[in-house]
Amino acid sequence: MRELSLTTRGAVFVAALVAAALAWGEMAKAAEMTFYGSQFFRLVSDEGKVILINPWIKGNKDAPIDIDFFKKGEVDLILATSGHGDDQGNAVEIAARTGATIFTVSELGGWMQNQIEGFGGSKKQVIRGGVGGRYQIGGVTVQLIQSAHGTGIKPSDKSHPASYSGGPASGALITFEDGLKVLMAGSTGLSMELQLFGMRYQPHVALIPIAGRFMMHPDDAAYAAKLLMTDNPNLKTVVPQHFRVNGRPGWMGTPEQFAAEIKNLGLDLEVLSPEIGKAYTLRK
Amino acid sequence: MRELSLTTRGAVFVAALVAAALAWGEMAKAAEMTFYGSQFFRLVSDEGKVILINPWIKGNKDAPIDIDFFKKGEVDLILATSGHGDDQGNAVEIAARTGATIFTVSELGGWMQNQIEGFGGSKKQVIRGGVGGRYQIGGVTVQLIQSAHGTGIKPSDKSHPASYSGGPASGALITFEDGLKVLMAGSTGLSMELQLFGMRYQPHVALIPIAGRFMMHPDDAAYAAKLLMTDNPNLKTVVPQHFRVNGRPGWMGTPEQFAAEIKNLGLDLEVLSPEIGKAYTLRK
Amino acid sequence: MRELSLTTRGAVFVAALVAAALAWGEMAKAAEMTFYGSQFFRLVSDEGKVILINPWIKGNKDAPIDIDFFKKGEVDLILATSGHGDDQGNAVEIAARTGATIFTVSELGGWMQNQIEGFGGSKKQVIRGGVGGRYQIGGVTVQLIQSAHGTGIKPSDKSHPASYSGGPASGALITFEDGLKVLMAGSTGLSMELQLFGMRYQPHVALIPIAGRFMMHPDDAAYAAKLLMTDNPNLKTVVPQHFRVNGRPGWMGTPEQFAAEIKNLGLDLEVLSPEIGKAYTLRK
Repeated sequence: MRELSLTTRGAVFVAALVAAALAWGEMAKAAEMTFYGSQFFRLVSDEGKVILINPWIKGNKDAPIDIDFFKKGEVDLILATSGHGDDQGNAVEIAARTGATIFTVSELGGWMQNQIEGFGGSKKQVIRGGVGGRYQIGGVTVQLIQSAHGTGIKPSDKSHPASYSGGPASGALITFEDGLKVLMAGSTGLSMELQLFGMRYQPHVALIPIAGRFMMHPDDAAYAAKLLMTDNPNLKTVVPQHFRVNGRPGWMGTPEQFAAEIKNLGLDLEVLSPEIGKAYTLRK
Repeated sequence: MRELSLTTRGAVFVAALVAAALAWGEMAKAAEMTFYGSQFFRLVSDEGKVILINPWIKGNKDAPIDIDFFKKGEVDLILATSGHGDDQGNAVEIAARTGATIFTVSELGGWMQNQIEGFGGSKKQVIRGGVGGRYQIGGVTVQLIQSAHGTGIKPSDKSHPASYSGGPASGALITFEDGLKVLMAGSTGLSMELQLFGMRYQPHVALIPIAGRFMMHPDDAAYAAKLLMTDNPNLKTVVPQHFRVNGRPGWMGTPEQFAAEIKNLGLDLEVLSPEIGKAYTLRK
Repeated sequence: MRELSLTTRGAVFVAALVAAALAWGEMAKAAEMTFYGSQFFRLVSDEGKVILINPWIKGNKDAPIDIDFFKKGEVDLILATSGHGDDQGNAVEIAARTGATIFTVSELGGWMQNQIEGFGGSKKQVIRGGVGGRYQIGGVTVQLIQSAHGTGIKPSDKSHPASYSGGPASGALITFEDGLKVLMAGSTGLSMELQLFGMRYQPHVALIPIAGRFMMHPDDAAYAAKLLMTDNPNLKTVVPQHFRVNGRPGWMGTPEQFAAEIKNLGLDLEVLSPEIGKAYTLRK
């Protein structure tokens, strides 16, 4: 029975290998999302590409990390959805530190190229594009999309009477290696473009702002989710963003309000209200 | 018959009281609108809040009033839909004089904060927001909405080669105490967003630009009214705006053209073509 | 039989006159389009008005002509869809040389007025307008339309840390003498506004960007054509634009990709992929 025994052991071994491969495959096929307050997200792709969105650290009371959390080579791509301080945040400094690429609209990118050498980085790290444009990093594709928001750039020296143009404000559609599509709406007001994004790009997960005052309030944010469901059978998860836990201004929306509004509209969606610093798996 | 007489007199007195109360109630429930040329409107809410939109006085040949018409405490809120001279007009100066609050998008607000101390006002009077954001004054809620227009800021000293960014151009949705919703479209071109505003906010009254050359011409303005009727049973009154009576340029549309285009499209709407300086009651 | 002969000759003569008149009528009723690379088009109207769109010559490797190709009086109207170097191109210099009128949005126009005297032109040549605004030249009407793109202005001297505002980026709807409507979408990302342009303006020909990275990629460009067909029985011809033949960057789309995507979507449209410098007749 030795042969059988061997065969059995072999079968077990093979089965274990298959299970491990499946488990690995499963792990490798799931993107991961961590929220650091406001609109700052860290995404890790199926194959390990690290993407930061609006990495606002200095002044962000919810951010549990410092700039030096990000080491050389630990970030691949940075997105910045507007020139506002809480959107571009510390993108340029982190890019300079880590060697990451920044992909953003031409005007904001031009400003960032003007700044990055001061932090020891290179202009070449900033890829300038525009609304609709795509950039690929490994097996991940990022497409810039429009958002209804301002994106003025105000240099810190006081000699400029008003804001420079950061170009159009943007959001992003991120397509991961396994086809998972995550739509980052940016700091947008409610817009008909969200209906188009649903119809045309059919995202599975949508990150929707709820701040109010400067963009959508939670009720409009829920309506945005509805627009994103237009001809889109994929949308299953909505993530409220642009909110604060520490030092929340009175006018700022909360994830609870957003969840209630989603329920009010009767939308069959999972509301994933991210805790600060906790990693979530995103799936189709 | 004295008793009867007394009773009668009493009944008359009570009836008069009731009538007065009804009349007062009626008055208190009706917002009032006065037009001062171009896009300059003065709205008085049900409970007496005074809102100015685009208070352009210096250079506005139709404005029958001077800056000093507005006294301390007589204006509560000022809206400015773009950084252009005829849109922001004299908002900053009037705010400084009256103590009014200005609510506008962040970039234009930043510029206004830069200017207001020069007129003796305070930066705190300028509330900065963004498209989609709301601000409440008493029982009135104002929400900024996008418009398809420019909003460059050109400081008056000649040392700047081009315009600074005033952020996104805006319009506003004003919800009065009794629920009356007035949509001020701003200086916009025709846009799909007007369909969204109809569907989502269901305004009762819409102020639609007809200037042409820099925005919608009267035919597109009528089509805008049609878009605003999408899933909106509320819209009953449309008010042409951004026109001039004195010194009208040849390319500028007229309220008569707008009324004709509304008729052409067969829209069941009342066209309220405002006379300069006359107060109109706005109702649901 | 001399009479008959005369009659015959007369008939032939009349027939020839009629044929010539018909031919002339036919010629007079067809607009002509020539492409010079990127987004640079020269249109000649039915009655001979010459319109340049985004005349980018210096630095445009595909442009087979120099600035001095255009002589005094040979250009009537110039459109510039954004303040970017490849969009406004050499519009100001050509206007100054030829005496042409420029029609563009207010902010970009202000910058052009700041520049044109340096080339020997006059500020009066620049007609400032806005999205939705129309300008007429002979029997041709041009209407500015919105596009989802940036339009920052970066003066060539290095003292400015970021871009000034060129106002909203634009496209144009050009209506020729015979009613032919050509929609120039500009350098836009995919937008719901394209659906509106189809419904409302019903263009016969659409010039759609395919560059990618800074705007639509060929697949989104094909979807744009689909949106332009909404309630629009007129659209028959789509022209890919914003592409390069010489020195094409790797990320830039090609007319072949666009034609394939139009086919993929099953759209019944003629794709006219313009060769550099060749004149095409545009018809309803």
